Parts: sequence; structure tokens; C-alpha cells
Amino acid sequence: MPPGPPHEEKHFAQNEVVRDLVIGAADGLTVPFALAAGLAGAAVANPLIVTAGLAEIAAACIAMGLGGYLAARSEADHYASERRREEEETVEYEDRERWEVAAILHRYGVRGDALRLAVDSICADKRRWVDFMMRFELDLKEPEPQRARRSAVTAGAAYVAGGLVPLAPYMLMPGTGGALAVSGLLTACALTGFGWLKARATGLPPLRGAVNALAVGALAGAAAYLGARLIAG
Amino acid sequence: MPPGPPHEEKHFAQNEVVRDLVIGAADGLTVPFALAAGLAGAAVANPLIVTAGLAEIAAACIAMGLGGYLAARSEADHYASERRREEEETVEYEDRERWEVAAILHRYGVRGDALRLAVDSICADKRRWVDFMMRFELDLKEPEPQRARRSAVTAGAAYVAGGLVPLAPYMLMPGTGGALAVSGLLTACALTGFGWLKARATGLPPLRGAVNALAVGALAGAAAYLGARLIAG
Repeated sequence: MPPGPPHEEKHFAQNEVVRDLVIGAADGLTVPFALAAGLAGAAVANPLIVTAGLAEIAAACIAMGLGGYLAARSEADHYASERRREEEETVEYEDRERWEVAAILHRYGVRGDALRLAVDSICADKRRWVDFMMRFELDLKEPEPQRARRSAVTAGAAYVAGGLVPLAPYMLMPGTGGALAVSGLLTACALTGFGWLKARATGLPPLRGAVNALAVGALAGAAAYLGARLIAG
Repeated sequence: MPPGPPHEEKHFAQNEVVRDLVIGAADGLTVPFALAAGLAGAAVANPLIVTAGLAEIAAACIAMGLGGYLAARSEADHYASERRREEEETVEYEDRERWEVAAILHRYGVRGDALRLAVDSICADKRRWVDFMMRFELDLKEPEPQRARRSAVTAGAAYVAGGLVPLAPYMLMPGTGGALAVSGLLTACALTGFGWLKARATGLPPLRGAVNALAVGALAGAAAYLGARLIAG
């Protein structure tokens, strides 16, 4: 292998569990914070705000965790059925599928003899041929359902932890106004940190991740607060 | 082009706006339904359930719509910076990058002369070479930020429409128990329909999509209801 650039880590090779935890916690901050702010705006008492917040957290955690868990199996089955169809097509429509391999390579400048030889090599082995079509024609990657399930459950559980941050002040403080202020501060700090980490975990610029998370949280909180105030009169 | 199979639509070529609307509405059903059910379980009066539900809808719609809107630009920038880096590497580490092209094709059975010729053709044009690396080494597709933004905003707006379905009975009926029952029925019907449509829109088996959506909605509602009842004593 010829020497490459020193920054070898093109893909962010972070621990996967940490990654799922960060994403779940970051997602768990905004809506519970904004919901609680909205109810505080409608002058609801703290115990009821906590009840509503916990109900939201339970619901969203299940929607995220169980939803992702179930989706993982659907996706694995979908991949398997597309693969079967592609396998049949390489038998029934051999010329067409060879032509499709050629069309994909042609797009990247492979022409003439080089193209003919490359298509022949790829189509010489049925398994590799179908691999190539799945990846480059259908743009489907072989799913890892167990990992996808674990990932959904981890992120769902982390949503709970994230959601408890903005609710904690309403649990521990007597007044609604004070709890709202502390909840806003705590959530702003947590959104900055987790927005940063989530961006790193998904390979995007961390500073912008933090700013975006803060902006979304602030706007969601303000909309819920003002909306609920308006409704409650 | 040689003749292919008659079912030409491998990728579900639905109208994109319809697709985003379906996904947003499907996502908007579960959490507002479960939150309202939780508050009904805690014997909260309907007007307050509606306030909490609308606050949740506003917050989640912003988190989804604005969050997706902002993420679209980050992703476009990320793609551009990875592309620049890849372009530099084809100059500074030419041998290594050629080797990487060869390694990818080798995986699909291209060997010997065929491999040498194919690598030469791809690397003859810097633009195509980088295209190839972006797609097949880094697995990054050229983002369409405008489409991604429109898509996020559409799904966020549809979340509102979806969320209003489970809340409507609490707006229109006086009693909490009756509203909960009607909300459960309406949401179950809507989850079945939108779970089906969302699965179709994302290329998964529709029947399982409907069943999964119903299961997640029922479990989220039950967890929120029982949890809130427990807390409220």
C-alpha cells in the first residue's frame, strides 16, 4: 500500500455506543425543554409540568427506540428481497444487467477495452456481480440489523437522560419562573455541549453543530412559551 | 440498452413533496397522542391537555423542520470540504489514491490487465477520479441542500397536521375519558394509514410498516398513560 496522508481517520472512528448516546441525548434536550417552557408560560404548576415532561419523554423514547428497533428488521428484509430480485435479474436479463454494470463504470471514464474487460471480470462471479449492483446501482448497503437495533435502543435510552436535564429544575425548585430560568440555562449549556459532540459524531463541523442546536432549542422554547401563553390567555 | 424487467420502478418514484408530507404526518401522530393520553391518565382537564399538546407540536415541528433545514447546509459544506481534501490527496498522494481505486475494483473481482486499464481510465480525469473516491471510498453522495431544506420544512409542517389528529377530540369534546377514547381510535386509524404510506414512501413492506406504527403508538400511549397515572398518584 503506497503511503497516504497522515490524518488517516477519514471516518470518525468513535466508539459506536458513545456515538448513539450522544445523538440520543442531544435529541432529548430540545422538546422536553420547550414543552416545559410552554407549560410554564401557561402558568401551569411545576408538578404538572414534570408529569407532562415525563410523559413526553416516555413516548418519544419509545417512538425512537422501539421505532428504530422495528425498522432495523424491515430494512434487513428489504435488502434481502432486493438482493433476491437482483440475483434473478442477472439470470433472466443477463444482457441488461451487464449493460448496467458497463453504464456505471462508463460514468467514471472507463471506456473501450478497459470497460469490456472490467465488466467481464465483475460479471464472471455472480456473487460479486450482485454485490456491485446492490452497492452501485441500487445504493443499498448490507444492513447490520443487530447493530441497528442496539443503536436505536441506546439512542432511545439516552433520550431519557437528555430529557431529564431540562425537567430537573421543575422537580427540585418550588417556583415556576425560577425553574424555567434554570432549565433554560442548563439546557443551553447541554445543547452547546451535545450539539458539538453530535456534530463530531456525525462528521459535521462541531462549532456549527453547537450553534445550530442552540438556535433550534431557543426557537422551539420561545415558540412553545409564546404559543401556550397565548392559548392560556 | 438491452431489454430489462417490466417492473421498471425499482426506486419508488413518488412525488417528493407527498413523500415528505407522509413521513412528517406519520411522525407527528405518536408523541402528541401519547402525551395527551398521559395527561388524561393524570386526570388533567382537556384545555390544559390541548395546551401541552400544541406546545409539544410547536417544539417538535421546529426541532424537525429547522433542525433539518440547518443540517442541510452543514452537510453540503461537509461534502465540499471532503471533496477538497480528496482533490488535494489525488495530487499529493497520487500513488496511494490510485491504489485505493484499484482496491475498490479488486473487491468486485477486477484483476490483472482489466484492473490496470480500468484504474488508468478512472484516474485519467481528475474530476471523475475524485467523483469515484467520494462515492465509493467515502460513501458520500453529492448533497442537494435546497431539496434537503425543502424536505425538512415540509416534514416539519406535516408534523403539525399529524399532531392535530390525536388532539382534536380534546379540543371538541368536554370529557377527558371520552376524548381519550376517540383520540385513541382516530390515532390508530391514522397510524395504520400513515404507517402504510410511510413504509411505501421509504421502500419498505407496507403491511409491516402499518403494524409497526400501530405497535409503537400503542406502547408509547400506554407507557405515558400508566407512567403519568403513577406519578399523579
